[in-house]
Parts: sequence; C-alpha cells; structure tokens
Amino acid sequence: MASALETIEEHRSHGGVQGVYRHASRSTATEMIFSVFVPEHEEGVALPVLWFLSGLTCTHANVTEKGEYRAACAEHGVIFVAPDTSPRGEDVPDHEAYDFGQGAGFYVDATEAPWAGHFHMRSYIEHELPALIGAHFPADMQRQAITGHSMGGHGALTIGLRNPGRFRSISAFSPIVSPLNCPWGDKALGGYLGSDRGIWREYDACALIEDGARVENLLVDQGTADNFLEEQLKTELLARACDAAEISAEIRMQEGYDHSYYFISSFLAEHVGWHARHLRS
Amino acid sequence: MASALETIEEHRSHGGVQGVYRHASRSTATEMIFSVFVPEHEEGVALPVLWFLSGLTCTHANVTEKGEYRAACAEHGVIFVAPDTSPRGEDVPDHEAYDFGQGAGFYVDATEAPWAGHFHMRSYIEHELPALIGAHFPADMQRQAITGHSMGGHGALTIGLRNPGRFRSISAFSPIVSPLNCPWGDKALGGYLGSDRGIWREYDACALIEDGARVENLLVDQGTADNFLEEQLKTELLARACDAAEISAEIRMQEGYDHSYYFISSFLAEHVGWHARHLRS
Repeated sequence: MASALETIEEHRSHGGVQGVYRHASRSTATEMIFSVFVPEHEEGVALPVLWFLSGLTCTHANVTEKGEYRAACAEHGVIFVAPDTSPRGEDVPDHEAYDFGQGAGFYVDATEAPWAGHFHMRSYIEHELPALIGAHFPADMQRQAITGHSMGGHGALTIGLRNPGRFRSISAFSPIVSPLNCPWGDKALGGYLGSDRGIWREYDACALIEDGARVENLLVDQGTADNFLEEQLKTELLARACDAAEISAEIRMQEGYDHSYYFISSFLAEHVGWHARHLRS
Repeated sequence: MASALETIEEHRSHGGVQGVYRHASRSTATEMIFSVFVPEHEEGVALPVLWFLSGLTCTHANVTEKGEYRAACAEHGVIFVAPDTSPRGEDVPDHEAYDFGQGAGFYVDATEAPWAGHFHMRSYIEHELPALIGAHFPADMQRQAITGHSMGGHGALTIGLRNPGRFRSISAFSPIVSPLNCPWGDKALGGYLGSDRGIWREYDACALIEDGARVENLLVDQGTADNFLEEQLKTELLARACDAAEISAEIRMQEGYDHSYYFISSFLAEHVGWHARHLRS
C-alpha cells in the first residue's frame, strides 16, 4: 500500500501540470518533498518516466525552476520526477560543509553513525519513491529512464548501472564519475560508508563497469569550462571504463559551458528527446 | 558617451552568452543591474532586441532563471534584455509593502517626495538603458520589441504605446492594463505621481489608447486561474479599449494558467517567435 501524498502546489505549465508534493518517507524517516511534471495526456494513458537527480546543495526546486524541461516533456509525453538530494530537518544530522550532510546525500544507504538513521537516499530513489510515483501518477513504470547533474549525475549513473532492467537509458550532466577518485567522493563515501573502499565500489560508476555492470544507452554532457572538471568530475575516467568494457557511450565535451543550470538547460530538452526515443517502444 | 559596464557574470548557454551586468545609472542615481542574452551570431552582425520588463518584487534574475526564453532567442537570433524593476539600495527610499517602493518602480518618473530622487524607471528604460545596450552589445536598435509580466506588462504596454516608432511589436503576460482602475495602480501612481489623476493617463495603457496612442502588433496572454485577474489586471478593459480604437490586438485567455513563471515560461518562447517575425524585416 503506497503512503499518502500531500500536494504542496500545482501549476498548469506547457499544457500539463507541474506539481510539488510531500510525503512521510520510511527510507529516510523524514518527510520528503519532490516535484513531478505530468504532460497533457489522454485519460487512461500511462506515460514513461524520466528521473532527474540533482547535485550538491540542491532541492527539487532547482531543476524544477531552471531546468527548461517541460516543453520537451510535453512534446514527447514524458513524466519528469525531481527528488530532493537528502533527508532534511532539525532532527536530521548535518555538517557545516556544503558537500556533506543535508543537501549532499550522494544517493547511498549510509551505514556510519550518525548518518545511518536517515541518509538512505539509495533505497528512497530505488524503491520507495518509484512505488509512490507508480501509485499516484499516470506513470508506466515499465518505461523508465534516468538522468542527473553532478552528484546527481553520479546518482543516475550508479542507480542506472545497478538496475539495468529498469532503465532503458541513462544520461548525465557533469557527473562525478568516480567517487573513489576525487575529494568529494572521499569525504562523502568515507563519511557515510566508512573506510572500507571495497564497499564504495557499488557507488562508483567506473568501478561498477569494471566489476561487470553494463548499459545499452548512455549519454553524458560535460562542459569544458566547468571549474570542477579536473579535480572532481574526471569525465575521462568514465570514457576509459566504457572503452575497456566495450560500452558504446556518447560522451560529449561541450565547449565553453560551465557547471551551472545555464549549461544543463541548454541540453536537457535534447536529453529528454533522446530518452523519449528509447522509451517509446 | 555611454557609461561603463561591469560584468557580474557570464555563462555560455544555448550556444550564446547569458550575462548579468552592473552600471552607474544617471536616471536613478544608483547602480543598476540587468541581464542580457546574446545568441551565437556571425561577427559584425547586429541583432534585434527584445525587452522584458518584470513584475512586482522581481529583479532581472526571475525571468533570467525561470523564463525559458534562450532556446527561442537562439533560434531566432534575438537579443533579450531584462532590467531590474526599480532602483535599490540602503540610501534609496523604500516602503514595507511588496507593491510600492523598491521592487515596484511601475516604470514611471516619480515626481513626489521622497521618490522623485531615484524612482525614474521610465527614463531609465526609455532612454538610458537603450543607449547602453546599443553601445555595448551587438544590437540593432532600429529593430526593437517589448514584452513584460504583470507590472512589467503594464510597463511594456505603456512604454510601447508612447514610443510607436521604436517598437515593432508589443506583447504582455498578465499585464496591469489600467492602473487608473485597480488598487495596485491607485497606490503606486498616487504615491509616485501625486493625486492629479490626469497625469496618470500616460502611465495607463487603456487611457493612452483612449487618448490616441496606436499599436500595430499587440499580443497579450492572460491566465484564467490568475488570482489577480479580477481585482488588479482586468484584461477586459484593454480588450474594450482596443475594440473602441479599432486596434486589432490578439488577447488570449489561457485556460487554467496562473500568475507564476510556470505560465510565463509556457508561452514566452512563442512570444519570442512572434516578435522575431515582426523584427525580421
């Protein structure tokens, strides 16, 4: 039985409805907020679903306001779901840094104190929220795709790679491709999962591929003017892992683009169209 | 000689450059911030300009982040300029209300104390900022069009109607069509201009039309679920004024849309395309 949903707001937009919703999450033991865009559609029709996982410091609101995805989702008949990036609240552990704690869940199930009580974003995105979406929206959960930005690109890649039967296509903007090999990953996975780096491998896109995970349809956009490219994102590690595994990925270096929503919004409509092609059949 | 511009930020977006700029304004005797999107274009080409005037409480940032106009501006080769809605600063008079003072300049040249020293948004938009845009951007100032939202829809209509030689087309989203006939207008024009309502007429789109102003290409979108429609916006007064003056305006009531950017962003790309057709020749 899916739990109840509270509607925070709904707006008619691009012919459909952009809503923001709240529910009590079992996974995180907090209330969680997410947004959903449902395009105009015929009564009784079930639409494919595209997940967008957001980056550090973001909530559902950033992509909902700045993503420029609704026109494409309306054109292609795709439901767009944007979850939050972590549990939140006064009773939830936090950290003074922007890249750890609230707003920085890294899409893991934390095992270390004090995070293990609430920081279960993996279970939330992989199990709880899909059940809720399937129960409350006109969604065809047999046709799902996933994308995300930065930490959310890491989330999309790792969740997509671990669930090959569920997602027909995976894309990412400026993803953290290997938390095992960057300061953001060291800090977050060390903090949430402890020092055994073997355990981290299921939260590392490159390691998952090295360990046998495969993906049929993979698209990555990365701006060349992104300040985080060299130290944190390291797109070339993903290209190398795909090459070694003979995965045919489309990894595009976009000249002059930075890490901001001005970059994401330039290509998100194209990603929606690309996913829609794979979701159509 | 146009004054100097300081670049606050620039981002590559949709193939062009979205920038935010600051300058010392003579009109308002403050620093002013505005944003400009310049599409990708051939060296030496001058592009037409579309102005977007924002509504109560907004800065340049609202439409810049939420407007979803860049794809259309890139497609049609149109420069998009988004000014602030008033002078701002600690030395600038303000009012506790959201609909008067800073963030609520109403696109007038104030004559009443304490506003007359800074609140000259009419002069700023009509004279000072166009000169700056012409001097610093690849803009063809012989091809301009104007649009805006709510208070900015009022600004677009009144500035457009008063300058028929300058703007080839005028559009508006949820505009205040007659400040003479609504509480927002009473408060703002009374405060900025004093109690002689005859003077208000050049800041009232319907009165300007009654007094002889004409426009060739006029497009208005208004949501039917807009909470401000009945008391403040009163679209029907504009329809009636256009009918009486035999102005062929396209005034569209959009079913179920509200006053938010979810509405604006649903139709702004279409407005850009509509203006572009009139700007092309």
